[in-house]
Order: sequence, then structure tokens, then C-alpha cells
Amino acid sequence: MIRVEVALPGERSYPVVIGAGALAEAGQHAGERPFCVSELTVFEAHAGLLPPLFATQVVPSGEAAKEWETLEATLSSMAFERLDRRSVVLLFGGGAVLDVGGLAASLYMRGIRAVSCPTTLLAMVDASVGGKTAINIAGGKNLVGTFHQPVAVLADTRTLATLPDSEWRSGLGEVVKTALVDGDELLARVERDARALAQRELGSIDELIAACVRAKARVVAADPHESGPRKALNLGHTFAHALEKVAGFGAIPHGVAVACGLTLALAASERAGLLEDRTLTARVDALLRSLGLPRSLGELRMQHGALPPRELLEAMKLDKKARDAQPKFVLPRRAGALQLDVELDSTLLLELLA
Amino acid sequence: MIRVEVALPGERSYPVVIGAGALAEAGQHAGERPFCVSELTVFEAHAGLLPPLFATQVVPSGEAAKEWETLEATLSSMAFERLDRRSVVLLFGGGAVLDVGGLAASLYMRGIRAVSCPTTLLAMVDASVGGKTAINIAGGKNLVGTFHQPVAVLADTRTLATLPDSEWRSGLGEVVKTALVDGDELLARVERDARALAQRELGSIDELIAACVRAKARVVAADPHESGPRKALNLGHTFAHALEKVAGFGAIPHGVAVACGLTLALAASERAGLLEDRTLTARVDALLRSLGLPRSLGELRMQHGALPPRELLEAMKLDKKARDAQPKFVLPRRAGALQLDVELDSTLLLELLA
Repeated sequence: MIRVEVALPGERSYPVVIGAGALAEAGQHAGERPFCVSELTVFEAHAGLLPPLFATQVVPSGEAAKEWETLEATLSSMAFERLDRRSVVLLFGGGAVLDVGGLAASLYMRGIRAVSCPTTLLAMVDASVGGKTAINIAGGKNLVGTFHQPVAVLADTRTLATLPDSEWRSGLGEVVKTALVDGDELLARVERDARALAQRELGSIDELIAACVRAKARVVAADPHESGPRKALNLGHTFAHALEKVAGFGAIPHGVAVACGLTLALAASERAGLLEDRTLTARVDALLRSLGLPRSLGELRMQHGALPPRELLEAMKLDKKARDAQPKFVLPRRAGALQLDVELDSTLLLELLA
Repeated sequence: MIRVEVALPGERSYPVVIGAGALAEAGQHAGERPFCVSELTVFEAHAGLLPPLFATQVVPSGEAAKEWETLEATLSSMAFERLDRRSVVLLFGGGAVLDVGGLAASLYMRGIRAVSCPTTLLAMVDASVGGKTAINIAGGKNLVGTFHQPVAVLADTRTLATLPDSEWRSGLGEVVKTALVDGDELLARVERDARALAQRELGSIDELIAACVRAKARVVAADPHESGPRKALNLGHTFAHALEKVAGFGAIPHGVAVACGLTLALAASERAGLLEDRTLTARVDALLRSLGLPRSLGELRMQHGALPPRELLEAMKLDKKARDAQPKFVLPRRAGALQLDVELDSTLLLELLA
């Protein structure tokens, strides 16, 4: 088992516990009567790993959970069960469960404690650290949310056994992004492990998840509310969110959209004259290929339909990172060195998205 | 014009500007394209006091605004108008507008700036300071919300001219509560001004609002997230929220319910042997009478129907201040000295509520 301590300025620090058996700690963090938010397939397969639960709210799987109806139902259920300010909400599922359940916990009585128990690779490396919660509204992805740090994160890798291949690959997309944000050392490590990762050999997955969590925790600690450096974590995400929105939330797994967003960010960086390490494009291309991730918008379109450039452009204008309908991009200069807040003109964007 | 600076630990401080003309400052806080949340009657009567607006969301008047539908519509409208992270939301109305609009501002893109422009006496003395936002759900009043401090509060007393008498009295209910929390000096002042207040003479209202704001700001600064001393501000509120819930949210004006809650809290304090100043009950009774506020549950029932004791008791069990369905009360020992977290047994409560 690996423990990583996440310390944010002005907040209580919290542990991220990674490995087979992490959920054994759930009882000590969740108190006597934990209220669980989970999704059906995860709950059916792995509820045995949890401590005795007081009540459970089952939400739809995947992005479909991140809707008003689910948030409202969860909060009503918390009220029905008479949770009080000492109650703890146990979030047991993928990123969507953590997002909507974390939002419910942050809103109920203006905030009660949450323990994040991510069950997907994506959620373990990304959603579980940093305290972002959200739902989607028609206007855009994650447009409604809060910052609410969990009291503990328990990433029990036993839950990965039942993860569908597509979700596994999605997680690898965020792993590659994290490596590009963090630097050469982590990137080289992912390259070295690529073959084993593609084949879902779990031998070194704890260490890799821990490395990603440490990388993300460093960035978040420097800027918890994303006013500056934390934006780096949005590498590839302006593109990715537009792809997900135009395809219909949930159609393209998030990390798969991010992988495609990384290649678009690299191309944009090159076109904008910002890319210092010219070998990076080929490296990322080879890495994505060996991980079974799309390396271009063309590849993504073969699976997910037209994704028209003009619709993608429109979607970007309402991205949270946009100002006055001018989307902002994070572009790589080299591994570990990113340019934040780049504006790209519509002509260039439409060419990239063609 | 009077300025009170509210300084909270770990937060940017913000000004509360009180007086006829306070809204002249709205432009400088709200930026170029303010998004306004308001209610129809207030907006129709006083929109001329506001700077040019980019867009306006009109919500139902009073507690009816504090519903999921209004929150969702407001957030959708913010997305439709493409507000970004620099946008400012101008909250122009009574406490309910501040509550639901402030919640929307705190959720949109995980939080954008809000300027509170309270237009009722209640909102000026109470809702505008402290950063609490909320909506009601079937399970209870204010059960869903956040803490989100405004960047400025502009209490323009010109808007009080059109306030209905019932709402004016409701505001006076919170004034009396604030005085009981703060101490003898403020209480004596309210007693001295009672006649003029009952007749809505506005001569000294700026000073009185400022005194209430200063009193509340002192309490909030000591405990922004209500883990301890801030609970004092809930004097009378466990009773009041139950009365409002059982009567149907919106039927009894909040401050009127609070006034009744104060008399119940005094009676409870006496019964529990906590009341040190035995003259307080008679003083408060006389003050409420001269302000035209109910002095007993009996008086309230004449206007609002049965309010059955057992239903009131049930409602209290889901109050945010309850633990394990055991409601907690704030009881006065004397003006300015309160006992927090008092538990009262059901028999005593049912007697008080009979």
C-alpha cells in the first residue's frame, strides 16, 4: 500500500491510499453511519469491500450521472435519511460518481465530509485529488460545481479488475497528460511501462498511480482554486471538452477525448511556434499508439461520427477557460513546460479541427 | 452613507455600504457587463438605481425563489449569456434573491463574483453579511447551499420605500434577534427607536442597519463556517424554521417566525433554568408588541392556522442544527449572553409548542 499526503494551503491535509486493500481504511474515515453514493455495476461487483453502510444512493453510470436530476435525487435522499453535519458521504465509483456525489456532499447543509473511493483508473489518477466537483448543464461540461476537498482518498486497485477495456484506456489518456504536465521522468516511465499498461498488467500500477497523484498534488497545492499554475492540468482539455460536448456527453470516454486533445495541443503548439522540443510530437504519437489511444481527430471520427469543426469551435467558446467567448489553451513547449492562457485564432483552430 | 468593512479570516474583506445612494457604487464593483438576478416587483420599481445591465434573470418573489427550478434556470441563463470567470452577478432583491442568486454565483464555473444589493430590511440587517447561500428542499429549509462571500454589499435604503408593511415587520424581527445576540446597548437602542421603527420613520434606519451589520460581522468573523460561536445567530431559528416549514415555506415571513421563535426560546430558557435576567422576557414581549410582531405561538396561529405541535417537533429533527435527529437550540441567558447547543426533551418541547 502506498500513502501520499495531499497538503493544500489553508485546508486540512488528507491521505491518498493506493493499493489492493486500501478500502480497509474506509471504516475509520467514514464513521458509524456512512451514506454511500455509487453506481450499479461497481456497487454490485465490489460492495463487499466497503464497511457496513447506513444507506446507499445508486446513480447512473458514467457522465449520465452528472445531471441535475441525479444531484437533486442524491440530496433528497440525504435529507430523507436525516444525515446531519457529522455524517460522512462515501463516494464509490468512477469520476462521475466522485463529481456529482462530491457536489452533493459540498452542498448538503453547506458541506459535510466526503471520502473518495475511486474505482476507475481515470478517477484514481485524476478525479480523486484536487477537490473539484461538478455536473454538466446544457451550456457546457462541468459548468456547475464547487471545490470540496475529501477527508481521505482510498484507491483500492482490486476494483480495477472489473473495469471495461475502454475505461482502462480512458484512464491511460489522463496518465499521459499528467506525464506531459509533470516532465520527462514521468513521461519516460510511462513509455517504459506502455506495453504492460496496454495489456493491463497490474504489477506496477500502484506506483504509477502514486506518481500521478504526487504530480497532481504538487500542482494543486500551488494553486488550489485554479487562478494560475493549476491551469496546466487542463492540457488537452479545451479540445477534449468540446469533443465530448459535440459527441454528446458520455459518448467519448473522457480520457480518450483528452488523448486526442493532447495531439491537437501539440499540433497547435507547433503551428503557434511554441513547441521547443520537436521530438515530443512523435514520442506522444508512439506512446498513444502503443496504449491503444486515438492519435488524431480522424481516428476519433471513425468511431464517433462527424464532430464538425464549426460545432467544436462553438463549444470551445463556452469552455470555463474562455474569456469573452475567446477560448484559452494550455500548450506544451516541452514535457514539464507548458504555456498557459494561449489564444488561438479561429482560422488556425478550424484548420486543426478539419 | 455609512461604510462597514467585513473582514473574514482567510478571505478578502468587503465593504457594506448603507444609505440612500449606496447603489451608485454598483458600477465600480460589477464591471462592464453585470448579470443581474432580481425579482419582478423590486426590479420594476427600482431598476433605475442600477448601472447598465448585460442581462437580467427575474426569479419569483420571496421564498418561492429558493427552489431547484429557479437555481437551474438561473445557471442555464448564465451559461446562455456566456458569463465567464471574470463576470459579476448583481443580486438585487430580498433575502431569497440573495440566497438563490448567491448560490448560483458560487456554483457557476465553481464560483464567480457576486455583489449583494439587498432591498428589504431583513436582507440588509441579516442576509447580506456572512456569505450564506441556500435553497430549500422538501427535507428542510436552507438544506442545500454554500458559503460564498460577496465582493461588496450595497444596501440602498431608497429601495425600502416600496417594501410592504409585513416585510418591514419581518425585518424588525431579525433586528430584535440581532440585538439580543449583541447585548444590552443595541437592545436599549431598538427599544428607544421602537415607536419610530413601527411607524417606518427612516430617520435613524441607516445607523440601526449599520449597528446590526457590525454586530453580525463581529460574530461571523470569529467563526465564518459556523462551527462554534456563529451559532449564536441562530437564536430563535430552530423554532422559526419549523414554523416556516409546517406553515409552508413563504407563508410566514421569516423575521415574523423569528420573532415568535425568540419568545419560545425565552420560555424554553426559563423552563430549562438558564435564564439569568428574569426581566428579559417582559422587555422582549413589550418590544415585539410595540413593533407589531407576534409575541406568542397563539398569536401566530390566529393568522396561520393550526401549526400542530407534533409536526413542528418533527420538522425540528431535520433542522441543520440537529444531530442524530436531536434538535439543538440557542437559548438566551441575558442580552448578549447565549447558551449554544442546548438539547431539550420532547415533553418540554411539546408543552412549549402547545
